[in-house]
Amino acid sequence: MASGGPEPGGALDRLIQLLAKLPGLGPRSARRAALHLIARREALMGPLSAAMAEALVAVKACSLCGNMDTSDPCAICRDPGRDQGVICVVEGVGDLWAIERSGAFRGRYHVLGGHLSAIDGIGPDDLRIAGLMPRLGPPLREVVLALNATVDGQTTAHYVAGLIEHKGVSVTRLAHGVPVGGELDYLDDGTLAAALKARRPSES
Amino acid sequence: MASGGPEPGGALDRLIQLLAKLPGLGPRSARRAALHLIARREALMGPLSAAMAEALVAVKACSLCGNMDTSDPCAICRDPGRDQGVICVVEGVGDLWAIERSGAFRGRYHVLGGHLSAIDGIGPDDLRIAGLMPRLGPPLREVVLALNATVDGQTTAHYVAGLIEHKGVSVTRLAHGVPVGGELDYLDDGTLAAALKARRPSES
Repeated sequence: MASGGPEPGGALDRLIQLLAKLPGLGPRSARRAALHLIARREALMGPLSAAMAEALVAVKACSLCGNMDTSDPCAICRDPGRDQGVICVVEGVGDLWAIERSGAFRGRYHVLGGHLSAIDGIGPDDLRIAGLMPRLGPPLREVVLALNATVDGQTTAHYVAGLIEHKGVSVTRLAHGVPVGGELDYLDDGTLAAALKARRPSES
Repeated sequence: MASGGPEPGGALDRLIQLLAKLPGLGPRSARRAALHLIARREALMGPLSAAMAEALVAVKACSLCGNMDTSDPCAICRDPGRDQGVICVVEGVGDLWAIERSGAFRGRYHVLGGHLSAIDGIGPDDLRIAGLMPRLGPPLREVVLALNATVDGQTTAHYVAGLIEHKGVSVTRLAHGVPVGGELDYLDDGTLAAALKARRPSES
């Protein structure tokens, strides 16, 4: 018990070590999560263990768009109600989910699986960029580049836009501006400048 | 995909719902954790699922002290190097681990499994208090009440102290005072008053 946790190397210790690898959980919260699980064996630990085992075999990347789903092609790619003329390019599946939550997009997606990064040694071949090319023919009209507004995200957007040029497809990007509900006083200068530059006639 | 996450009711959705029940993870961080797990199937999701399944059957409460361990009695209760004359009473296993990490206690423990709470309807019979009584005979000299410095914790300490009185065992509590590394300016008045009242001759 020198570690001040459960017996090192034991089942409980192993559980804590693994929980601590989840994003958002550190060593302290991993210990708390482990005790929470132990206290709710039947209601939580059993089902969670089973859900992971099931996801392990059932969840795979859609071979068309890269979304994570239990079917391939994924539910979005199979949905005939989706606009086949627009593809939204995102970095990760989390971004896809965020756009779905907004309810403002009814086309399909293409998940790159990351962004270009010289520092991390991630080049075009490490991303799902090649798989985008065969999707560019008709009926596609537009590719929306919804990459993160970070340096790496914008570099990636620039690179992808270069590949799509002259393919007869229009390329668009998300607008920069004031977040809805945001206070100007707390906004960074870059966003405020972008919002001013893109100002629109007032619709009163 | 109306939920803006994975397909509702699917394997991935179920995983996220369960992860969101862990302390420290909300809906957003549960989604991130699920994607993190999917991206690290072999390295993390498989082992974590297995660790939970193992803990489910292997980890149990020590019938003597209430600590969580894979053996019963637990490793601490079985350790002959532990001082058999002192028992430290704590609310939960997390508190036991915290005291072990301090390295300042070499006796044994008694885990109550919570604190008395009129609001939550938790009475003495809901805690492991009865199990403490048979442990009070010789060679026991001292019971350290290491309960939380909250109203409920101190109520519980008061109640337990009352039961131990006149059993020929001395009852002690943790000292209140300035946390090591703490700044007086940020300290609450109660702690500062307690630290002043318990002031000691300077050793230098």
